[in-house]
Amino acid sequence: MNKTEPRASGFADRLASAVIERQTPVMVGLDPRWDHLPEALRSDGDASPVQRAAAYRRFCREVIDVVTPLVAVVKPQAAFFEQLGVAGMEALADCIAYARAAGLLVVLDAKRGDIGSTATAYADGLLGPTCEGMFAADAVTVNPYLGDDALEPFFEVARKRDGGVFVLVKTSNPGGRMLQDLQAGGRPIYRHVAEYVEGVAHGSQGRCGYGVVGAVVGATYPEQLAELREVMPHCWLLVPGFGSQGGTARDVAGAFDQQGLGAVINSSRHIIFAHARSPYAERFAAADWQRAVEAATRDMIDRLRSDTPAGQLGSV
Amino acid sequence: MNKTEPRASGFADRLASAVIERQTPVMVGLDPRWDHLPEALRSDGDASPVQRAAAYRRFCREVIDVVTPLVAVVKPQAAFFEQLGVAGMEALADCIAYARAAGLLVVLDAKRGDIGSTATAYADGLLGPTCEGMFAADAVTVNPYLGDDALEPFFEVARKRDGGVFVLVKTSNPGGRMLQDLQAGGRPIYRHVAEYVEGVAHGSQGRCGYGVVGAVVGATYPEQLAELREVMPHCWLLVPGFGSQGGTARDVAGAFDQQGLGAVINSSRHIIFAHARSPYAERFAAADWQRAVEAATRDMIDRLRSDTPAGQLGSV
Repeated sequence: MNKTEPRASGFADRLASAVIERQTPVMVGLDPRWDHLPEALRSDGDASPVQRAAAYRRFCREVIDVVTPLVAVVKPQAAFFEQLGVAGMEALADCIAYARAAGLLVVLDAKRGDIGSTATAYADGLLGPTCEGMFAADAVTVNPYLGDDALEPFFEVARKRDGGVFVLVKTSNPGGRMLQDLQAGGRPIYRHVAEYVEGVAHGSQGRCGYGVVGAVVGATYPEQLAELREVMPHCWLLVPGFGSQGGTARDVAGAFDQQGLGAVINSSRHIIFAHARSPYAERFAAADWQRAVEAATRDMIDRLRSDTPAGQLGSV
Repeated sequence: MNKTEPRASGFADRLASAVIERQTPVMVGLDPRWDHLPEALRSDGDASPVQRAAAYRRFCREVIDVVTPLVAVVKPQAAFFEQLGVAGMEALADCIAYARAAGLLVVLDAKRGDIGSTATAYADGLLGPTCEGMFAADAVTVNPYLGDDALEPFFEVARKRDGGVFVLVKTSNPGGRMLQDLQAGGRPIYRHVAEYVEGVAHGSQGRCGYGVVGAVVGATYPEQLAELREVMPHCWLLVPGFGSQGGTARDVAGAFDQQGLGAVINSSRHIIFAHARSPYAERFAAADWQRAVEAATRDMIDRLRSDTPAGQLGSV
């Protein structure tokens, strides 16, 4: 892979290669929450933001160490780092750099969106991977409410830097219906967004058949997931809501193409905090939280292999 | 003002008092862009992110020094700070703290949005003013695409901390029409958002008649501005797009109530980079860029006084 000569389709192809190589579409969400961290990483009593950020850094690095042999891609959630101020942002930068150095692809879940040159500033700050920026992720999530001229700067930076963009189309939360399901011109708003996103992706396919722009579609709406797979045949889908939010392997089956490609399925809490839930809490000692992460990741990989087209992933 | 005992209406009332005290609804946008900074603040050749962040910090502090006697509220744009990585976020924290210490209200333009507990993390990280957080702004802008359950955590933190929230309703950019103007159930999407926002604000009015939740409505759509003023009688409006984006004093006249309250009108580039445009570039030497900022602020204040109901602002 030539990282210095950006190609329009670079990110989409890199994601396809990585998913095929690992033989799984599982994406691990890095959402460090202080109250959920393993005991071993939490100091007693009140911890300062700097202490918490240090714990987040160590936690993310250890999770990355565990999942690197198993999955292709991780998704740090910017909010939990930003919550801790500057020290948190330092931990975020470390998390992105550490994951990339390990060979993982990194999708920064930032859901940013602003107009024109302000959107360019966000894209410049958050999107790599061919730049020297501090938060140089392989791809970033963005919000479509401000419209096409607010999204284009992200696409442009992504094309230049061999990066990717995932546009929120249908989110996994119940309240997502409020605007996204309103009917306009005979179809829901999310469908309008999907058609726009497909239009952009269609012009930028790589060898894998997918383009530089993908879409976020929640696992909690299985029917819409299958509908949107059809509406966006050239878009990678990033599917959140698996596990903690109730999405199952069968729910996400419609997200894949016939080769088992085209979607990455994210799980955050269900994997990274597996030490605190059944059956892992019973199987592993508290100090062995990393083994709980590994077991939960393997279980999710197995479930997607049995119950979705991801079981048909070809060889590289 | 009692900052330790939060009131539901605290921010709305504080904003009203501050606007009446300064006798102007002008809001100064702090959008530091490297290429536009006054020569005096830019080092020669390539500057590192750390050097740029130091220049942003100095620039914002000097702008704040100039505008503090003239206006009530400033709006730092998170994107330009985030673009510089951790050093930029340090400059943002400094800018917020410096403006608040000067007695200004601070609306952080972050346009954040995420689901449930992730939204809580953003709100906790960005919203003050009664907390010790690093980016403890008086209010924050948020994006409604993810729906009510993604906005409520921001409202909840705002209520607890005496802060405010401005929800994007109708943005100033041309592309904002793509989703916001789609017709659903006989009215545009932005109107649906406006009705929701008004419903939340209605339950939380303070003495001034406005609630804890406001709305962002662009100056570039004067008709919709007047329409939305009527739809949201209990919402402060944050009106961007004045000046550089083409909005004039007459365009924003419809944003105010009969007392000249209810709206703050933002200008960023037109004020903070006045040194580079006519007539200020001719009137002031390059090294006197602060005087250009002052003159441009005074001119905007005068224009809003002559051509909008803001000229009728009563006394405190």
